[in-house]
Amino acid sequence: MNIAILFGGSSFEHEISIVSAITMKKVFKKSTLTYIFVDSNREFYLIDTKTINSKLFSSGEYKKSKQLTLKKGGFFIDGIFGSKVVDFDVALNLIHGRDGEDGKMASMMEFYGIPFISPRMEASALSYNKLYTKFLAQSLGVKTVDYEYLSKNDERKITMAYPVIIKPVRLGSSIGVSIVKSEAELDYALDVAFEFDTDVIVEPFIEGVKEYNQAGCYTQEWELSIVEEPHKEEFLDFEKKYMDFSRDSQVLAADISDDLKVKIQETFKKIYDPLFKGSIIRCDFFVVDDEVLLNEINPIPGSMANYLFEDFEGMISRLSKHLPREQNITIDYQYIHSIQSAKGKA
Amino acid sequence: MNIAILFGGSSFEHEISIVSAITMKKVFKKSTLTYIFVDSNREFYLIDTKTINSKLFSSGEYKKSKQLTLKKGGFFIDGIFGSKVVDFDVALNLIHGRDGEDGKMASMMEFYGIPFISPRMEASALSYNKLYTKFLAQSLGVKTVDYEYLSKNDERKITMAYPVIIKPVRLGSSIGVSIVKSEAELDYALDVAFEFDTDVIVEPFIEGVKEYNQAGCYTQEWELSIVEEPHKEEFLDFEKKYMDFSRDSQVLAADISDDLKVKIQETFKKIYDPLFKGSIIRCDFFVVDDEVLLNEINPIPGSMANYLFEDFEGMISRLSKHLPREQNITIDYQYIHSIQSAKGKA
Repeated sequence: MNIAILFGGSSFEHEISIVSAITMKKVFKKSTLTYIFVDSNREFYLIDTKTINSKLFSSGEYKKSKQLTLKKGGFFIDGIFGSKVVDFDVALNLIHGRDGEDGKMASMMEFYGIPFISPRMEASALSYNKLYTKFLAQSLGVKTVDYEYLSKNDERKITMAYPVIIKPVRLGSSIGVSIVKSEAELDYALDVAFEFDTDVIVEPFIEGVKEYNQAGCYTQEWELSIVEEPHKEEFLDFEKKYMDFSRDSQVLAADISDDLKVKIQETFKKIYDPLFKGSIIRCDFFVVDDEVLLNEINPIPGSMANYLFEDFEGMISRLSKHLPREQNITIDYQYIHSIQSAKGKA
Repeated sequence: MNIAILFGGSSFEHEISIVSAITMKKVFKKSTLTYIFVDSNREFYLIDTKTINSKLFSSGEYKKSKQLTLKKGGFFIDGIFGSKVVDFDVALNLIHGRDGEDGKMASMMEFYGIPFISPRMEASALSYNKLYTKFLAQSLGVKTVDYEYLSKNDERKITMAYPVIIKPVRLGSSIGVSIVKSEAELDYALDVAFEFDTDVIVEPFIEGVKEYNQAGCYTQEWELSIVEEPHKEEFLDFEKKYMDFSRDSQVLAADISDDLKVKIQETFKKIYDPLFKGSIIRCDFFVVDDEVLLNEINPIPGSMANYLFEDFEGMISRLSKHLPREQNITIDYQYIHSIQSAKGKA
């Protein structure tokens, strides 16, 4: 099977997307990979799989690669004698952050009829924005951590007790995130967060909270990963996360009771089905007083959370055969016809 | 000023989009219009403004027009000697329903850096889906009509008292909408709605409820339309709405108290700002016991609700100069550089 890896994007997470993408070369052992890079200027390039490495991008050398045009049916190489489509079976959207997780690539691939693995548009819009994730969870009866919401022009005042954690609503990978221990630190933390986004959410920072990650997808059946207990410092900073995006070997399952495991899995399924069909997501949960709270949805997790699955490659292949289909809409112009005959003109 | 009218789309509302688009020819008196049609197959065509009429589309004759490719910077006419961009100052997204209101066109235009008037992606995702509109309203402290939510595979059971109104969550223009007076009629109404969508919302049908429409946008200041009291039968069926999409002359303001007018306007502003910046939307409100309830957001109203404004053409021009800007993201590869130097390789 031939999998197109879409990566890069005009995103604060552009560089970790490159790391995620290169990691896929080690992860996929039987498949052919076709690398499609979205540069910071949002031009598409076909990158040679044999020679791909991170320096190609940081040096700007990728610009010597063939440029592509996204059109109906796929990515095309334009030439003097017409254009030729780049061949692949399914595109795996590995663009973290803007362009990838916000729904832009999903919109474009759906519009142009390209089969792709990624959250669809609605799922992207709701999970890319941490405030909307709260709405979604609430509507599904999934508990979350309390929160307050602040926009750039709002008064910088919170009612929650310290310590709190400040997160830009639209970023992943801990970018712009701060733990704030007292009111004196609030202003600076907000300055940092507002550098990246117009809106932030504020949540209580729960010292030593138990955190568990669950990834998965639905093919013809549920394919859930092991439950992982991430090892963490206060929280992962960007550089540590960065290294995390290059993980390619399976990790051990968390040592938790079957009861808790089932609770986590059932909560994951509630969130995933049906909104996230066609994607592999990772949900990060907190467990407080035996209750499972949704912390975050990672709509395009680092290196696709491959290290949590026993048969990641097989799952991608199965998922590519069970992608959600867009509803077929037939346009027959019956209304225009009837109005034309009623009016005797158009 | 040169305004590109984007219309058509792979949408149940494709035909009324054509009607909306043609209406613009009467509405814009000083501007140049450039018509860009998205056919049912999602191919783009440049349509001659002088000869545009509805028959061009119903007959399939539009296929003789120049085909366009959407790329960075605009819509291009490909020719033997390279490609040439279609010239315009701003695109006005007039695609009702899927492709237009769901955020696909907004995604693509933002991605390719084309200035456009339309709700942005997040605004589209939240307003295109009537369930998400409820979440949004709730988060803003805007009251809505009660509702229940049903998916295609759910048990067909509601707890609300009859009569109720059944609406597919993702459609406008009253498509698939039914009033259900008793349990005996529920099944058929759901069959109809589920032909168009996988999910529906059920709301109480309030006989003779007072309904008011408010349209507007924010340029450098609020530009709000008159408040209209739409004349309606039980509700507007598709054919009547269809005729509605061709309205081009200003209507009279509703005869309401200043108090109520202010309430409606303030509610509109709460919904619009900041999510809908860059767009002209119409909100339909119910007034029950002196309370203003949001009924629906029309993210791309029929004929852009031009008939509610005194200076629609001037407003479009002002809005085009005050479009929201995408955040600038600089990608400097500092992380890749630092990891390369730490590892001595990539």
